[in-house]
Amino acid sequence: VTRGAGEADWIEVIRAAFSAVGAYDAVDDDRDAHLLAGAGRAFLNVDAHVAGRHYPWPCPRPQDAGYRGVVAALSDLAAVGARPADLFLSLAFNSDTPAHFLHPWIAGMADAAARWGLRLRGGNLTWADRPTAHTVVAGSGAVRAARGPLLPGDSLWLTGTQGDAALALALDPQGAAPSAFPELAARFWRPEPRLAWGRALWRRPWIVGVSDVSDGWLRTLAAMPCQGGLSIDPDAVPRSAAYMAADLPSQALADSYWGGEDWELAFAARGIDARDVRRSLRRAKIPAAHVGTVISAPGITFASAPALAPPPHFGYDCLTPPA
Amino acid sequence: VTRGAGEADWIEVIRAAFSAVGAYDAVDDDRDAHLLAGAGRAFLNVDAHVAGRHYPWPCPRPQDAGYRGVVAALSDLAAVGARPADLFLSLAFNSDTPAHFLHPWIAGMADAAARWGLRLRGGNLTWADRPTAHTVVAGSGAVRAARGPLLPGDSLWLTGTQGDAALALALDPQGAAPSAFPELAARFWRPEPRLAWGRALWRRPWIVGVSDVSDGWLRTLAAMPCQGGLSIDPDAVPRSAAYMAADLPSQALADSYWGGEDWELAFAARGIDARDVRRSLRRAKIPAAHVGTVISAPGITFASAPALAPPPHFGYDCLTPPA
Repeated sequence: VTRGAGEADWIEVIRAAFSAVGAYDAVDDDRDAHLLAGAGRAFLNVDAHVAGRHYPWPCPRPQDAGYRGVVAALSDLAAVGARPADLFLSLAFNSDTPAHFLHPWIAGMADAAARWGLRLRGGNLTWADRPTAHTVVAGSGAVRAARGPLLPGDSLWLTGTQGDAALALALDPQGAAPSAFPELAARFWRPEPRLAWGRALWRRPWIVGVSDVSDGWLRTLAAMPCQGGLSIDPDAVPRSAAYMAADLPSQALADSYWGGEDWELAFAARGIDARDVRRSLRRAKIPAAHVGTVISAPGITFASAPALAPPPHFGYDCLTPPA
Repeated sequence: VTRGAGEADWIEVIRAAFSAVGAYDAVDDDRDAHLLAGAGRAFLNVDAHVAGRHYPWPCPRPQDAGYRGVVAALSDLAAVGARPADLFLSLAFNSDTPAHFLHPWIAGMADAAARWGLRLRGGNLTWADRPTAHTVVAGSGAVRAARGPLLPGDSLWLTGTQGDAALALALDPQGAAPSAFPELAARFWRPEPRLAWGRALWRRPWIVGVSDVSDGWLRTLAAMPCQGGLSIDPDAVPRSAAYMAADLPSQALADSYWGGEDWELAFAARGIDARDVRRSLRRAKIPAAHVGTVISAPGITFASAPALAPPPHFGYDCLTPPA
């Protein structure tokens, strides 16, 4: 790895460095949140939310910026079926950060905590060039023991609608709030962590994997540990009416295809007909669509022609400088 | 609070915002690390370690920079008598951060994890202007239920020696490694979290409070929740031979007086003679000195004349820009 290496490279460097000294525990490496040793069923997740990187800076909606940072962290708890309990905030900003941003930003975090069952238990303040929230959430989990990778024949599903938040950002990079598309703006600024859906999914015996969609649906599906490859039908991906109604410049479509922070769930089912999955989801009131299947051929095969092919390096690298 | 408010002001803003919506749990607010709800005796702490803020940048000793960031987080677990188990890293840097810094920085974190019983369980990468490690550590704790504030008559103690790390930084701001003072450099770059001492202290029935010394011994003592005030004997504060031998410019003395990250422990004893405390500490092989007493008069009273009076705003504000 040399200067200029990307996110995935550095994650490998970290794994290798800790493994080399016996200080890496990879037991639930494929999970979005991680069990604490010797703490019952407590799951923990840490996530970061950076001004100008995860939302526009200067920020038109500081309260919502605080809110969605907490949701970003909770979304990973949703994927393990956990019930949130504890919040720790490691906040970074500086003495020149405007108070008219900081006050509502903090109030928005408190709002999200109250709404989703978190209590602030501790934290830290430090200096940063741009306001950054490193958010630690913990809660008791419902997820079963790891089952290994997805296998050929497993069906792939996506909840809610996909690409709305990325489209909001593509249409209005400075505000992510195109007045013509209030639904898209709401999806960007006031997302819901799918906590109840995550818990309901893990109660179903045919669930073999759940991930949250924080970097685009295609990247999320491609990142699920899998023996073989994926056959995907892009036309089956669930879309909102607001998304369908948008007259898309192609860049906006591209972004919404593999980018974005919708914080929906992707999941895989095994040994059950798609029809029976749908019936079970209907009972649990979980809107979700069957978008593909695990196949033995490696890589991604598109069952219908995608409107745009993914670029060779699709997805988002967290380390590139913000705009 | 307006623009320019300091660390303590913002901590109050955060407490108030979360309290207003019922999302603040202050049960163990006076602790350095915090119990997780519904997770047995699991304590958690989050701390941040910023290049150019907590250590010189560019950094002459990247591996030690990684090491001491993990120790900074562990020091708070020491104060609650916890046994470390889980590590989560929320790291921030950027695509221009030199690889010749990042590789040893990561290796140093792994070293510290292996040395102090942590296993890396998860984490996050994101962009930041300067390399920053937000470190989450968790472990099972030995601390007893909160006992309320310190009371008049409680005796005050400091472990190890104080001011060595701050003096290293004052004598050599670019390297914190004055070749004339290798002991001070070692104290700055390779600190030890006082984990075994913290556990041993909490096994003693007369312990009523333990804090880690991360911002200078005077500030740490002054921050312990207390009914009344403190009488302090600065001459009794334990000092290393290297510290005493240094020919101090007054600024260096000032810094080492109330600044610094020695990661020693400050503790309070109740209902026991100082002589009996000393005997008990000797059995546990904990070097510590009796430096003062809680008194009913508020504020800080110096039992011997301090070499320098603390400035009106003593201590360190985490939000001011780094050098």
